[in-house]
Amino acid sequence: MDILSVIEHKKQHQRLTEDEIRFFVQGAADGSLPDYQLAALLMAIRLNGMTIEETAALTWEMARSGAMLQPDVDGIPLDKHSTGGVGDTTTLVLAPLVAACGGKVLKMSGRGLGHTGGTVDKLESIEGMQVELDEDRFVEIVREVGCCVVGQSKNLAPADKRLYALRDVTGTVDSVPLIASSILSKKFASGAKAIVLDVKVGSGALMPTLPDAMNLAKTMVDIGIKLERPVSCVISGMEEPLGSHVGNALEVKEAIEILQGKVQGPLKEVALFLGSRMLINAGLAANHEAAKAMLLRAIEDGSGLQKFKEMIAAQGGNPEVCDHLALLPAAPVVMPVHATKDMGWLSETDGVALGLAAQRMGAGRMTKDDIIDPAVGFVLHKRIGDPVKEGDLMFTLHARNEREAEEARLRIEAALTFSPAPVAPSRLIYALVDKDGANEMPL
Amino acid sequence: MDILSVIEHKKQHQRLTEDEIRFFVQGAADGSLPDYQLAALLMAIRLNGMTIEETAALTWEMARSGAMLQPDVDGIPLDKHSTGGVGDTTTLVLAPLVAACGGKVLKMSGRGLGHTGGTVDKLESIEGMQVELDEDRFVEIVREVGCCVVGQSKNLAPADKRLYALRDVTGTVDSVPLIASSILSKKFASGAKAIVLDVKVGSGALMPTLPDAMNLAKTMVDIGIKLERPVSCVISGMEEPLGSHVGNALEVKEAIEILQGKVQGPLKEVALFLGSRMLINAGLAANHEAAKAMLLRAIEDGSGLQKFKEMIAAQGGNPEVCDHLALLPAAPVVMPVHATKDMGWLSETDGVALGLAAQRMGAGRMTKDDIIDPAVGFVLHKRIGDPVKEGDLMFTLHARNEREAEEARLRIEAALTFSPAPVAPSRLIYALVDKDGANEMPL
Repeated sequence: MDILSVIEHKKQHQRLTEDEIRFFVQGAADGSLPDYQLAALLMAIRLNGMTIEETAALTWEMARSGAMLQPDVDGIPLDKHSTGGVGDTTTLVLAPLVAACGGKVLKMSGRGLGHTGGTVDKLESIEGMQVELDEDRFVEIVREVGCCVVGQSKNLAPADKRLYALRDVTGTVDSVPLIASSILSKKFASGAKAIVLDVKVGSGALMPTLPDAMNLAKTMVDIGIKLERPVSCVISGMEEPLGSHVGNALEVKEAIEILQGKVQGPLKEVALFLGSRMLINAGLAANHEAAKAMLLRAIEDGSGLQKFKEMIAAQGGNPEVCDHLALLPAAPVVMPVHATKDMGWLSETDGVALGLAAQRMGAGRMTKDDIIDPAVGFVLHKRIGDPVKEGDLMFTLHARNEREAEEARLRIEAALTFSPAPVAPSRLIYALVDKDGANEMPL
Repeated sequence: MDILSVIEHKKQHQRLTEDEIRFFVQGAADGSLPDYQLAALLMAIRLNGMTIEETAALTWEMARSGAMLQPDVDGIPLDKHSTGGVGDTTTLVLAPLVAACGGKVLKMSGRGLGHTGGTVDKLESIEGMQVELDEDRFVEIVREVGCCVVGQSKNLAPADKRLYALRDVTGTVDSVPLIASSILSKKFASGAKAIVLDVKVGSGALMPTLPDAMNLAKTMVDIGIKLERPVSCVISGMEEPLGSHVGNALEVKEAIEILQGKVQGPLKEVALFLGSRMLINAGLAANHEAAKAMLLRAIEDGSGLQKFKEMIAAQGGNPEVCDHLALLPAAPVVMPVHATKDMGWLSETDGVALGLAAQRMGAGRMTKDDIIDPAVGFVLHKRIGDPVKEGDLMFTLHARNEREAEEARLRIEAALTFSPAPVAPSRLIYALVDKDGANEMPL
């Protein structure tokens, strides 16, 4: 076999065989194929597409291109992934709750470049927290506690790592087969046997339109069917940040407050929805109502928060943070911003601009080597559809200094649009896509 | 400007602007853009195409990516190019004839890998012949003699050189805009102001079908119109070798015999057709009939052969070869092959197999460093449509030894197919495409 014939076949709209896919994935992993040939093949795949059979084969070959965990966690290894979004801390809410209900959540999470840190960056706001664990310890914690969140292992899915880096610099990111196989290959490599995916839709999201998002979701569900590992996709909106808190320690605080039962709202609702799919996929609940009731009970009886404490303790962190939020890093400047006049109704938030504001405050990385400041960020006190009157508290800044607070204030004010007439709240969840098909959701 | 947005635009089926095309061509020439980004862009161009405006801009930017000759040759600098074929020596016939009629033919020619050598390899069969001349001397010979044939200068169209090498290893050769711009950019860089192109059609040709070839021809003509340099394309068949002689010195011999007026046949006919377009493009003849009459006169009065002698002498070769063909290198083994029974009518020749036979005899290179044996090759005594009876001379081998002759005999016999019923001769010329449109030709 040679790579030119593989490129030729895809260029001519032909299906690639499993052997052809294995050949180029192995060549990507072991370095025997040069970047330029992989780049040409990626563009041909981007433009001519792949069938589900091809995409499933690509997923599987990338998953097994390096080490592949076979974790013994005393249950079905569950995982959850989100395609991204500002202020999305669902993992920190649902992992302890699902664990409290008997689920086994193995979560490897990227650090991510961009607006705020990845989930592991958020966890590092907690004193002593170790997110770089070896695989044995990772699996041991999942088995004992029920959940563990660590950084992405470097040995997993090396072919995906190389192809992903190439896609980023060759204009081939926006390909459904390539996105789907990239997401799922890492999950399968880390041993997940059932996966819940939160596919964001909206401007600024990987998938800007609902049909795009549905297409990606359906592809991932179908890959799961082919590879006999159930995949459920929730399509959720990102018209505005899911939680009210944006910033690493601030998001940990919000997650703890939800686990304490003190805070309601969209972040909690979406976390419960995703968590209930995990319990159903694990065979721990028969349907959504039963699953949701189990998760709510884990909030009420404190068992979810207890699991979070156990996970923090197992990963070397100080679990007292869950009872004493003041133990989280705090920014020196806290600046509340009030409306100086009647604004009308909040009608739009520019997620990209909000993310940039958080990043500039120090909450996210611009380059791989930047150091995140865990304390900084902001809290939004209004959501889309809320009326904003003169004197209302709109948002609170947590900054390193007055100058950066002021700069962030200007950015955030510019990111908010108001309407003179009432506006409906933004939609949280659009649809659920799983092996039974796609269903619109009333949330 | 950045390359990712250029890739993105082409990926999204958008037209690239002149600035975008200049940006990536310069980045290809100066090495500032990496192979993988160029490879992705080439695949996007291959799959999403380019308009004539884009293709003309690409041609022009590649032409001026290095040195660009502005030759003062006391007339319109003419060039001719063929997309390739076994036994095609039209350049050596038409360049002296056109020069004898007052045309100025500047021909830079590749050495080429494959079945036989390129035109410069053929010329090197002549003792002392220099095909690596500096540009000043090249232009001087054209001005004084009227024609000169040299190897491709290394400074011309460096962007094309890089992109061509990448296309070869990324499955992006078969793109009409990329082929057309590659061919013409080199011609324009070497100073040609009017160009005649011989586009071959048939199995084994770059363009296997007539619509493909017409499409390429039309694209090149349109580029010429945009860039105000007339381009005419002749679409000719390659069902069988154009000349009867295949091999470097053998092809020089055939060209000289045509110039001597001793040999008729398809090679002469096609050379006259291409040469007459050159005279018309140069404004030296009003129409095909007039141009052809001028060229025939240059054969009859010996002025064409005289020009060939002058060109050889100017390039350091021994012009006496034109009167004494025995001065050309001769192979030690000459083996005539006769039909051992009544074969019927020659109906098909496998050009790829014939080319391979010549290459294995030593007439062509397999790698860049192979040395060509100028003496070897073969002469075909039958053309498609000819009846072949027992005892008829079918072909004559010119080999280095008996073993190689025998091997070539088997290859060539296998390359010839016979029919029990009469067969029409193969078609020489299908169409002429120029600024006045496409016209079928009766040749």
